Amino acid sequence: MNFLEEVILKEGQALSDKVLKVDSFLNHQVDPDVMRKVGEEFARRFKGTGITKILTIESSGIAPAVMAGLELGVKVIFARKRKSLTQNEDLLTANVYSFTKEEKNEISVSKKWLTAGENVLIIDDFLAHGEAALGLAHLVEAAGANVAGFGIVIEKSFQSGREKLLKKGYRVESLARVASLSNGSITFTRQTEEARI
Amino acid sequence: MNFLEEVILKEGQALSDKVLKVDSFLNHQVDPDVMRKVGEEFARRFKGTGITKILTIESSGIAPAVMAGLELGVKVIFARKRKSLTQNEDLLTANVYSFTKEEKNEISVSKKWLTAGENVLIIDDFLAHGEAALGLAHLVEAAGANVAGFGIVIEKSFQSGREKLLKKGYRVESLARVASLSNGSITFTRQTEEARI
Repeated sequence: MNFLEEVILKEGQALSDKVLKVDSFLNHQVDPDVMRKVGEEFARRFKGTGITKILTIESSGIAPAVMAGLELGVKVIFARKRKSLTQNEDLLTANVYSFTKEEKNEISVSKKWLTAGENVLIIDDFLAHGEAALGLAHLVEAAGANVAGFGIVIEKSFQSGREKLLKKGYRVESLARVASLSNGSITFTRQTEEARI
Repeated sequence: MNFLEEVILKEGQALSDKVLKVDSFLNHQVDPDVMRKVGEEFARRFKGTGITKILTIESSGIAPAVMAGLELGVKVIFARKRKSLTQNEDLLTANVYSFTKEEKNEISVSKKWLTAGENVLIIDDFLAHGEAALGLAHLVEAAGANVAGFGIVIEKSFQSGREKLLKKGYRVESLARVASLSNGSITFTRQTEEARI
């Protein structure tokens, strides 16, 4: 079990067989030490792949993305779910359905900070159905930039996001892969595999 | 001039005499190195004051708050502008009018992560009219916790926020204090004072 899985087992709560609550260190309260380790691990996995920028989405992606950016020495841009009045420049947009919030968001980034030729690592807190991930990849490709891969803090491996991203040829690095949340208990894919052996 | 003022002069844009755009390193694109220095400076100023937690608000407060939390060795909690479906617990709420977005937001934090007896440093990207700052202070005090002070990345000193906070007896530490944005040019309070001498 890696450090993140240990934190999840200790602090996470399976609210249902689909919802994992990790608001003690990631989604509401943020543990800077855990985020730093998460950032270091993303950096380790993507080192040497020529990342020039990190793209994430507000709000829970920001802390892990900034820590990864610090390690990789690149800037981070976060897509917005709502436009701000000072965002008056040209925007790249994508439509993303959020299963958690049960609504469709138009996510956007400024064309100024995501440009052709960049090699972009996409970081997010969760990978579930892959809606946000595909929306972020759309933004990168609409800018003429390359998706170097996805760095995911927690993957719900029982949902279809990972499969969708792999099918499109993207590299997916998830630091914790949750196999199941059934009966209020959290199990990870590796544990599941070990249990099979 | 301090490091942050140098970054602001180099990268900031006075869009009007009230709006300062700093989306290259703080509000949209985030520069992790600048954020780390900002966090270190907040930690230096509040070291020894017994901070037990940092409170900020999504989204642009998260990066500087997490960097400060890393330095001070405390956790960060970010108030939400919209509720998430997995936030099913008791919430503390405050109403905040945003002049930038021209709308009123109900901001909220979970009672679970902001509790009586904590000594809370409030960090935000901007201090303008003080609406968000006062809302965050309200959340802290509604929890029975103490406001140790405010760590502000950029203060618009020509607006009333700082004055409102000082009048209530709060300590305010702003890393850059903008005296004016008139005629497309950015000046800081210290520069203004020097010019007077």
